[in-house]
Amino acid sequence: MKLGIVGATGMVGRVMIDQLENLNFPSDELYLSASEKSIGKEFFFRKKKYTILSINELLSKSLHIVLFSAGSDVSKQWAPKFAEMGVTVIDNSSAWRMDPNKKLIVPEINGFCLKKTDKIIANPNCSTIQLVMILYPLHLEYCIDRVVVSTYQSITGTGQKALNQFNKEKEGFSYYEDEYEKIYPYPIFQNVLPHCDSFLDNGYTIEEIKLMKETKKIMNDKKISITATSARVPVIGGHSESVNITFKKEPDINRIYEILSKTKGVIVQDSPKENIYPMPFFSHGKDEVFVGRIRKDYSCINSLNLWIVADNLRKGAATNTIQIAELLIEKKYV
Amino acid sequence: MKLGIVGATGMVGRVMIDQLENLNFPSDELYLSASEKSIGKEFFFRKKKYTILSINELLSKSLHIVLFSAGSDVSKQWAPKFAEMGVTVIDNSSAWRMDPNKKLIVPEINGFCLKKTDKIIANPNCSTIQLVMILYPLHLEYCIDRVVVSTYQSITGTGQKALNQFNKEKEGFSYYEDEYEKIYPYPIFQNVLPHCDSFLDNGYTIEEIKLMKETKKIMNDKKISITATSARVPVIGGHSESVNITFKKEPDINRIYEILSKTKGVIVQDSPKENIYPMPFFSHGKDEVFVGRIRKDYSCINSLNLWIVADNLRKGAATNTIQIAELLIEKKYV
Repeated sequence: MKLGIVGATGMVGRVMIDQLENLNFPSDELYLSASEKSIGKEFFFRKKKYTILSINELLSKSLHIVLFSAGSDVSKQWAPKFAEMGVTVIDNSSAWRMDPNKKLIVPEINGFCLKKTDKIIANPNCSTIQLVMILYPLHLEYCIDRVVVSTYQSITGTGQKALNQFNKEKEGFSYYEDEYEKIYPYPIFQNVLPHCDSFLDNGYTIEEIKLMKETKKIMNDKKISITATSARVPVIGGHSESVNITFKKEPDINRIYEILSKTKGVIVQDSPKENIYPMPFFSHGKDEVFVGRIRKDYSCINSLNLWIVADNLRKGAATNTIQIAELLIEKKYV
Repeated sequence: MKLGIVGATGMVGRVMIDQLENLNFPSDELYLSASEKSIGKEFFFRKKKYTILSINELLSKSLHIVLFSAGSDVSKQWAPKFAEMGVTVIDNSSAWRMDPNKKLIVPEINGFCLKKTDKIIANPNCSTIQLVMILYPLHLEYCIDRVVVSTYQSITGTGQKALNQFNKEKEGFSYYEDEYEKIYPYPIFQNVLPHCDSFLDNGYTIEEIKLMKETKKIMNDKKISITATSARVPVIGGHSESVNITFKKEPDINRIYEILSKTKGVIVQDSPKENIYPMPFFSHGKDEVFVGRIRKDYSCINSLNLWIVADNLRKGAATNTIQIAELLIEKKYV
């Protein structure tokens, strides 16, 4: 299996390489590409040496699969060129997610709908993946009417520059008096920014719109009402989500536990009196989605609250991308 | 005006003293009390020297008003003794808040219902005060049906020991390997704990129950449906709240702006495209409640989302307490 990664030196790209080793992914040959300034440079990862190629060079390698994680513009320009040459692209940007002719895949949920002819496959937004991993199995049983979600998003979602800004502020540098590279419009250390990605005219951020639209597409149900508020918190290790769900049928809390406990890729952590609940400090480096604080919302019929945490670089990005690749191999589509 | 503070050396107590100076509160004589170990010690604050008295000594000072911020047990034991002697107690603990014979006051909302005979007056929970400051004026116009709130609470809400834990972890101390005083059951630095105060049998924390019950009591409307999830974030400077509100009437966003802009004690910060929205980094040390990200919830009839931030030690505690005292003086009730 010949595999390529575009955007290999970024935060998600590095986790992808890491995951390929962890998951014993059958890649006999791995080729890496990154931005212009890295081309030709040697890149060491886990004691292995890679030479960074240009995307054009990658295109000539007769790859089976190429994983893209280099932003929307790169994907829009290059993914079709790989697809035309018969290479299956799994794209981690937002470029193709809402394209009606492209599939937006979380393997546990809608992996079954993949076909051999799908040459550009979209990987969902990080905060969407962990949300649908919990919503979907509950939707099958109780039919979701409405979801209200508020996120607590890790700075790793913004990339290495965000970590650099955080570290400078942690060391005592002043956002307004000292010079250092600032990726956020305000200090992130000891602060919360109700602002992930850019704002649209309707007052929502692109991140919030992604959460709402992608959820409906993955769950293949346009009738689900969903609203979202996304906030950036000074956290590393994972995104957290406070979720209120209203079902069409009355949910049974014990049955909810049963469903989620049996859901592949989900771990229930819910013994609050023993301080067992999901937290980003502990989701760091884990592939699963963690759920807890599951409790009836006594204020509204058929409703409950719960708390979801996952490593946004793992299941929220790299892990899900590689799981899509694994599924394609298993189905002999590549 | 002779004023006393019980719990003067705590985080809220110090802000109270600070606020008495800032607001030019007419306290000719100020007497401070704190825990056993501080009694007799000299306490310097803003270049003034105070000697810490026992609560018994405070009781003998013929005070007009005493502000309590020393926890529920101290309030339960001592507030009635002051009240019996004709001293008006304004209590910042949860001891009397839900007592049907005691008033729970946010001056801008229900200050009008205070009477000369109210000798123990309860100050609401920090996250409740900032929430009702926004909900109440909107309720008057559009009648609230349902509220879903998720909080992002500052560690200053837990007190000085929480700040100490945070600072140790910021310096690189390991929660699991190093010895230092730990007030939270997990690391707080770079983490989120969906856990404020203790858990009850129904899966909610006491903090969440306070938010739900106190809101109804202050707004004097048992019919409002409200559910809450409270989380602790590694933040200093204020609590943030992501709030989804469903009204009985269709809200007009421009009118919402108008109402909130005219509400005393509220500042609207809402030009998202210019990155204007409330944040705890900037609410620190401010007396107002900040609101922004006001936008229609397109997924549900008569609904909107908004984002509320306030300094939990100021309007969430000390400022509101002192505003109650000011009102009592203005009405000549003390």
